[in-house]
Amino acid sequence: MKMLITGGTVVNATGATPADVLIDGETIAAVVAPGSTLLGFDLAANVDTVVDASGKYVIPGGIDAHTHMEMPFGGTFASDTFATGTTAAAWGGTTTIVDFVVQYAGENPLAQYAAWHEKAAGNCAIDYGFHQILSDVQDSSLTAMDELVAEGVTSFKLFMAYKGVFLSDDGQIVKAMQKAADNGSLVMMHAENGSVIDLLVQQAVARGDTAPYFHGLTRPWQAEEEATHRAIMLANLTGAPLYVVHVSAKQAAEQIAQARDRGQNVFGETCPQYLYLSLEEHLGAPGFEGAKWVCSTPLRARAEHHQDHMWRSLRTNDLQIVSTDHCPFCMKGQKDMGVGDFSKIPNGIGGVEHRMDLIYQGVVTGEISLERWVELCCTTPARMFGMHGRKGVVAPGADADIVVYDPNGHTSIGLGKTHHMNMDYSAYEGFEIDGHVDTVISRGTVLVDDGEFRGRVGHGRYVKRELSQYLI
Amino acid sequence: MKMLITGGTVVNATGATPADVLIDGETIAAVVAPGSTLLGFDLAANVDTVVDASGKYVIPGGIDAHTHMEMPFGGTFASDTFATGTTAAAWGGTTTIVDFVVQYAGENPLAQYAAWHEKAAGNCAIDYGFHQILSDVQDSSLTAMDELVAEGVTSFKLFMAYKGVFLSDDGQIVKAMQKAADNGSLVMMHAENGSVIDLLVQQAVARGDTAPYFHGLTRPWQAEEEATHRAIMLANLTGAPLYVVHVSAKQAAEQIAQARDRGQNVFGETCPQYLYLSLEEHLGAPGFEGAKWVCSTPLRARAEHHQDHMWRSLRTNDLQIVSTDHCPFCMKGQKDMGVGDFSKIPNGIGGVEHRMDLIYQGVVTGEISLERWVELCCTTPARMFGMHGRKGVVAPGADADIVVYDPNGHTSIGLGKTHHMNMDYSAYEGFEIDGHVDTVISRGTVLVDDGEFRGRVGHGRYVKRELSQYLI
Amino acid sequence: MKMLITGGTVVNATGATPADVLIDGETIAAVVAPGSTLLGFDLAANVDTVVDASGKYVIPGGIDAHTHMEMPFGGTFASDTFATGTTAAAWGGTTTIVDFVVQYAGENPLAQYAAWHEKAAGNCAIDYGFHQILSDVQDSSLTAMDELVAEGVTSFKLFMAYKGVFLSDDGQIVKAMQKAADNGSLVMMHAENGSVIDLLVQQAVARGDTAPYFHGLTRPWQAEEEATHRAIMLANLTGAPLYVVHVSAKQAAEQIAQARDRGQNVFGETCPQYLYLSLEEHLGAPGFEGAKWVCSTPLRARAEHHQDHMWRSLRTNDLQIVSTDHCPFCMKGQKDMGVGDFSKIPNGIGGVEHRMDLIYQGVVTGEISLERWVELCCTTPARMFGMHGRKGVVAPGADADIVVYDPNGHTSIGLGKTHHMNMDYSAYEGFEIDGHVDTVISRGTVLVDDGEFRGRVGHGRYVKRELSQYLI
Amino acid sequence: MKMLITGGTVVNATGATPADVLIDGETIAAVVAPGSTLLGFDLAANVDTVVDASGKYVIPGGIDAHTHMEMPFGGTFASDTFATGTTAAAWGGTTTIVDFVVQYAGENPLAQYAAWHEKAAGNCAIDYGFHQILSDVQDSSLTAMDELVAEGVTSFKLFMAYKGVFLSDDGQIVKAMQKAADNGSLVMMHAENGSVIDLLVQQAVARGDTAPYFHGLTRPWQAEEEATHRAIMLANLTGAPLYVVHVSAKQAAEQIAQARDRGQNVFGETCPQYLYLSLEEHLGAPGFEGAKWVCSTPLRARAEHHQDHMWRSLRTNDLQIVSTDHCPFCMKGQKDMGVGDFSKIPNGIGGVEHRMDLIYQGVVTGEISLERWVELCCTTPARMFGMHGRKGVVAPGADADIVVYDPNGHTSIGLGKTHHMNMDYSAYEGFEIDGHVDTVISRGTVLVDDGEFRGRVGHGRYVKRELSQYLI
Repeated sequence: MKMLITGGTVVNATGATPADVLIDGETIAAVVAPGSTLLGFDLAANVDTVVDASGKYVIPGGIDAHTHMEMPFGGTFASDTFATGTTAAAWGGTTTIVDFVVQYAGENPLAQYAAWHEKAAGNCAIDYGFHQILSDVQDSSLTAMDELVAEGVTSFKLFMAYKGVFLSDDGQIVKAMQKAADNGSLVMMHAENGSVIDLLVQQAVARGDTAPYFHGLTRPWQAEEEATHRAIMLANLTGAPLYVVHVSAKQAAEQIAQARDRGQNVFGETCPQYLYLSLEEHLGAPGFEGAKWVCSTPLRARAEHHQDHMWRSLRTNDLQIVSTDHCPFCMKGQKDMGVGDFSKIPNGIGGVEHRMDLIYQGVVTGEISLERWVELCCTTPARMFGMHGRKGVVAPGADADIVVYDPNGHTSIGLGKTHHMNMDYSAYEGFEIDGHVDTVISRGTVLVDDGEFRGRVGHGRYVKRELSQYLI
Repeated sequence: MKMLITGGTVVNATGATPADVLIDGETIAAVVAPGSTLLGFDLAANVDTVVDASGKYVIPGGIDAHTHMEMPFGGTFASDTFATGTTAAAWGGTTTIVDFVVQYAGENPLAQYAAWHEKAAGNCAIDYGFHQILSDVQDSSLTAMDELVAEGVTSFKLFMAYKGVFLSDDGQIVKAMQKAADNGSLVMMHAENGSVIDLLVQQAVARGDTAPYFHGLTRPWQAEEEATHRAIMLANLTGAPLYVVHVSAKQAAEQIAQARDRGQNVFGETCPQYLYLSLEEHLGAPGFEGAKWVCSTPLRARAEHHQDHMWRSLRTNDLQIVSTDHCPFCMKGQKDMGVGDFSKIPNGIGGVEHRMDLIYQGVVTGEISLERWVELCCTTPARMFGMHGRKGVVAPGADADIVVYDPNGHTSIGLGKTHHMNMDYSAYEGFEIDGHVDTVISRGTVLVDDGEFRGRVGHGRYVKRELSQYLI
Repeated sequence: MKMLITGGTVVNATGATPADVLIDGETIAAVVAPGSTLLGFDLAANVDTVVDASGKYVIPGGIDAHTHMEMPFGGTFASDTFATGTTAAAWGGTTTIVDFVVQYAGENPLAQYAAWHEKAAGNCAIDYGFHQILSDVQDSSLTAMDELVAEGVTSFKLFMAYKGVFLSDDGQIVKAMQKAADNGSLVMMHAENGSVIDLLVQQAVARGDTAPYFHGLTRPWQAEEEATHRAIMLANLTGAPLYVVHVSAKQAAEQIAQARDRGQNVFGETCPQYLYLSLEEHLGAPGFEGAKWVCSTPLRARAEHHQDHMWRSLRTNDLQIVSTDHCPFCMKGQKDMGVGDFSKIPNGIGGVEHRMDLIYQGVVTGEISLERWVELCCTTPARMFGMHGRKGVVAPGADADIVVYDPNGHTSIGLGKTHHMNMDYSAYEGFEIDGHVDTVISRGTVLVDDGEFRGRVGHGRYVKRELSQYLI
Repeated sequence: MKMLITGGTVVNATGATPADVLIDGETIAAVVAPGSTLLGFDLAANVDTVVDASGKYVIPGGIDAHTHMEMPFGGTFASDTFATGTTAAAWGGTTTIVDFVVQYAGENPLAQYAAWHEKAAGNCAIDYGFHQILSDVQDSSLTAMDELVAEGVTSFKLFMAYKGVFLSDDGQIVKAMQKAADNGSLVMMHAENGSVIDLLVQQAVARGDTAPYFHGLTRPWQAEEEATHRAIMLANLTGAPLYVVHVSAKQAAEQIAQARDRGQNVFGETCPQYLYLSLEEHLGAPGFEGAKWVCSTPLRARAEHHQDHMWRSLRTNDLQIVSTDHCPFCMKGQKDMGVGDFSKIPNGIGGVEHRMDLIYQGVVTGEISLERWVELCCTTPARMFGMHGRKGVVAPGADADIVVYDPNGHTSIGLGKTHHMNMDYSAYEGFEIDGHVDTVISRGTVLVDDGEFRGRVGHGRYVKRELSQYLI
């Protein structure tokens, strides 16, 4: 299958330029100055398909480096399967996810890794890689880390919260970091002080403060700032690199910025919810509605100054990536487990479908440049997580993962509008985007075009990742 | 003229990938997956020339954003003409310079701009753009700033030192910054406190401390840190962007980093001399030898911790560009004007020929990554100074400015070895580089190959620059 | 004259304790545990006067380290003479001022010093010392600095604003600082960037923005922050200590705090106007009313966060002293010189009478502790400016400068209420204080008691100051 | 008993002045200008004793706010009993200690408090107060905190290290802080990350790195910095004040300084060992000698820059107090439990006898001023720990705890020289001090004079402390 995308503006992380893109099979064969001919050779006439991208952006397919498909959590499962979640991702211009293999305390990391392969294999509409969650760092976990790196799982997520479920104590974190410093892998951190949060939750529930709103109040910014600093200092001690997931508090972002100023290899991501949503308006919605936005780290109070700081940090590269932390639960039958006790509400927001649009809107409003949009959503995730050369860039030799994005199009987010995730609500209901995902191509195959899904579950392939490009 | 560069690894700022580069006329027609054929079409057979880059890096031509060819200074002229200087640049893999139009106090900026065009036109071996120096900011200067932007001079350099020659007082700086904030241009700053330096120089000379060494001691880091902070604060007041040239002191770099953390548009460059040379060893060389390294900002005392901080700042993007501040003077007849009084030594070091090599050596020693080398020396200068799309990137549509760099080659720097600049000494005499500039191409024309210069003075063309990509 | 103050609570900087104070002649003879007898010896029976301070605070007389009596400025004179100003000071519980000898550019510092002695001698109701203003630092000024230190003038004020009047350029500042580092004296700095301010003023007037309000807008916080940092860096270069006067901007205070954290000898004062008044409410008062509050540094916009930061800095000791910068001008005949052009309004606010009350109110509202009030207003000024042991402390051997302050009293500030300064308005009209200056004693002589002034012009004596205690 | 100390220079925290001190019974009756007469009344003739302090300093008795007499630890007891330890303290000019009631996990805080009273009552040569250690914060502990405050125990120490022995987890710390914020007491923190340290210790021992030297290497500065920051953030969350004990790492002190700059009520102490001793020279002494200096926090590597920072922090008031953390163990029978395994060496250094001398030496070498010596060692401990007015100041009404210190005397520290602690070695063997504790008076009773101990075990009395003066 040979394809030529003509007439568009190719946007890479360092610049936008008019160019045609020639796809031959699964990879990009060439990026060509506009005109569709080369040395007199008529490219258009020699391909199977010509995609007209006139007036549109031709960008690398999006990479969502933080998803939780079918994740078992709190007695239920994230409501998107690999099939539904990756299909929704494709609709939104994301062609690769990196999902988390879950290892709960006591489980065998390698067995879990195998189990996740079973769940995903044949069930994904787009390509997928894995990070591995390590919940209790045993000696066998350290051995497993080496084996997993060989398998292409080059990043390991630890938790400083969720005691008895995910939490690793500081000694365990250090052990994993020593190993990461040794084998070149990347430690990802859920940075919240679980011990403090558990106490505040217990006190709130005891006081009768049980509404979703109190989910936010019992996970204060100090708990995030503290854990972020602690993770940075443990990384400093061990020489390990660190990637802090879902940064939501200004003060936590400042800790990351300071560490980077000192030259430490510390990275961070934020998510669309921390750029657009707030504790007061969303978590504090009337009745039980706030449950829709129960996620951790939580939406912040007086969110405007946190949101402003997140956008600024994305501009200044103090944060490098926007992921979704996609972890959807339905209100009915899942979120409602927490009626009368917010602590029983499954934690998570779904958004894998909307990331490319929501962050593009930041280009429209002047928060970031066009190039930075591509860098945050495509290029840096590929470089950070060992997929450079293959993903996140429109360049010859790379996988032909391409999105044709129309800056003159429009997207309305919401149930019954754009919404293919398996959720009975949309966390971004009513958001309007001044752009549109027109065509989505994965390894040369059109997944979405003309408002139709033309891909298939099973197309997606496992991505064996290399070490982070930033650490070589 | 059609050319195919095959077998090499194309290195852009975000990644390195095996690819062939097709040049058609002056621009890059395509970047193609390895193999020299496309859809069965034999590219190699259809070009005039095939360059074999096997085992080598194919990078964008270097951009030196800070040179002073033939600059009148202290009663003499920088010893490189546009002809000699740009030829030397080509030898070293630099295919574009941005030189400074000098306006001394009392002169007319537009007349000077015209004069510089006269000097450069027909005399350059590589492409060249201009920054404009503004020495006294009169109302007419403000008008001129608008006209110059229309001419492609989108950056203006001010001086906080050299009273009576270049210095603008703070009110004048604010006036220029107000204009820059208005017309989108970039203010560049020589950030040293001239009033303090003039006093210290006068005191040193009065004490009889007249050796070159005292050039460094009379320009202490505090003078640079102070002026850097002042420039940042004036930029903050006016909303203007700021680019600090030739940062040499750790403390000045820290000021820039802090401003960037606050989200201010502040940028900075350093130069090879601040990464490799020191006050004690070089300025302090026996007798009058130190004069070779008299430049401003000066080489620093206890340079190791300044040098380390410069490399770190380049890694963390707190500094974004490496330029040379190429301003050569011969020892005989020029530098020797300052025998017995260091303050009469013309200020400047020549290095336009060695930048690409010297910074590549930082890749070899692990200071920076291969991609970062290209970003610092090629891509960011293009983006910063309004040449994005055309220069600094290996991509279709861009000017075919390309260097084939051999990581297995070797370069010995020094007189009688690699040295084409019009200087009677080398500031980097004896430096050994683990790499080599093999082939240099400018707009499709081979300038250097097989150890021979094949270009010609007159090939170089004026680059009308747009506004900085970072400020759009 | 022997006096016993009984029944009160003696408040010194480190603690408050019930104690009696015995005065014998001009000094404190003893501080005695309550009871008025010592070893059976009846103190009360052996003194001339017993002052009953039951239920009241017995504190050291206030020291206002920043006043400008009869200061020539802008074609007029500050409206308080030494006679009226020191009398008003006494009314308010201040028993020592340190006034500024003015040397305009071209004048002889020593001659000016002599002239100020003439003006003050025999005309003061309270004790007085002198700082010396140096406006152009000539070689003769450096010699004068040594002579003045011998005369008890151990602090020298320089200006970074008021070009052609007071301003010293950075080289001159360095010269003075070199001398101060050498002779142990203290450099005080008016830290505002005059070059920038002059431009902004000229632009505002040219635009027709001539109301008093624009006085504030043309002296933005950046101008203060910048100059503060610059002064700190010049001090760092020379090793001189630095005392920044009338800090009003949060950002300037932060610069001071950072320098102190690094261990540099940098100190700062703020004034009541920066703790209570604002650009919007006061400078922006209707019509020409705002002229009342034209002073430099100016009242700040969004003053609340600046004010909060000033109080915090006083608590954390990042600022050490509260002075008034007392420089009164009448609206009629003085301030009104600037009708139609704010730049012609004489700069200054009078407040020498109200400082002790206004800062005590901060004790009432919980901003500072009782001890800190005494420290900020009495003890630290004495230590900072070389009067330790003699002033600022209730201890034997010290001058008997004492205020009996009634925390159950009340003071209403305003014309026709408490107001003895020679001004036709009060900058603090309508302020209500929950405390009252009952009795004021200077070197054993009662100046104020029972709501009557019992002192006399001529009582005040010159205080020959030693070097700062903080620098020994 | 009436006593007059004549001819000396009374040194309080804010100044030094020649004055006589009259003691009547247990308290200071008056501080009197020199001359020994008052209103003609001959004080000297009416007292029982006249102490001639000519040429000497008369200072408040030292307060050591951090001692562990007879502390049970690691299967043994600190080798000084209340009797021997307080006697040694008296020899060194310390007249008050605040010792720690130990509550191990599972014990009842109030029962422990009672037990400590039993141990101390009748056995102390000087006055003593108590802090309470809380090792596991149960609900009953929170109730106990209120009761203990009523008993005069107004400060509570928590540990972030020593798991299973002392460690409180973060939730427990928050609970105690919530209570402290409520009842006005002060939380003291041993700030080291125990979880990390336990791992590093276990790894070192497993590697065979068992010498005392590894005690230091397994408690790296990151563990202290991290815990310090964490404690600060938990205090920020709860609004509790925080006092960090035995700060030894520069980076930890910087965290405290930053918190103070933000206006948070965070305080810190350091100890003589962190001002004078080092990991390399002391912990790294040949053979098992290093065990003498095993204490936690540990002596630091490259200690010079840590020591410099500690002195600087004492100057800048970023640290406020010098205590000893006196916790002596003998080499024979105690320290030697750790031969072959440093982790079994009892942690602690004895120094209660030498603090006043060792810090005075900092006055001699110019690190701090004379006043600051008194403030750090006497006045601030009293104010911090609720003894203001009674202790730490030479003022009427205060307890007559006074030291006559001879700046012309000399003290040689070491076994067989000055050494009254129950230790078989001196941690400061060979230190020479340019000053001497001549006379020590506690509540009017001479404890030490003419090189003889004239006090008695049993003289010391419990000090019921009030809330911290800094928090009122």
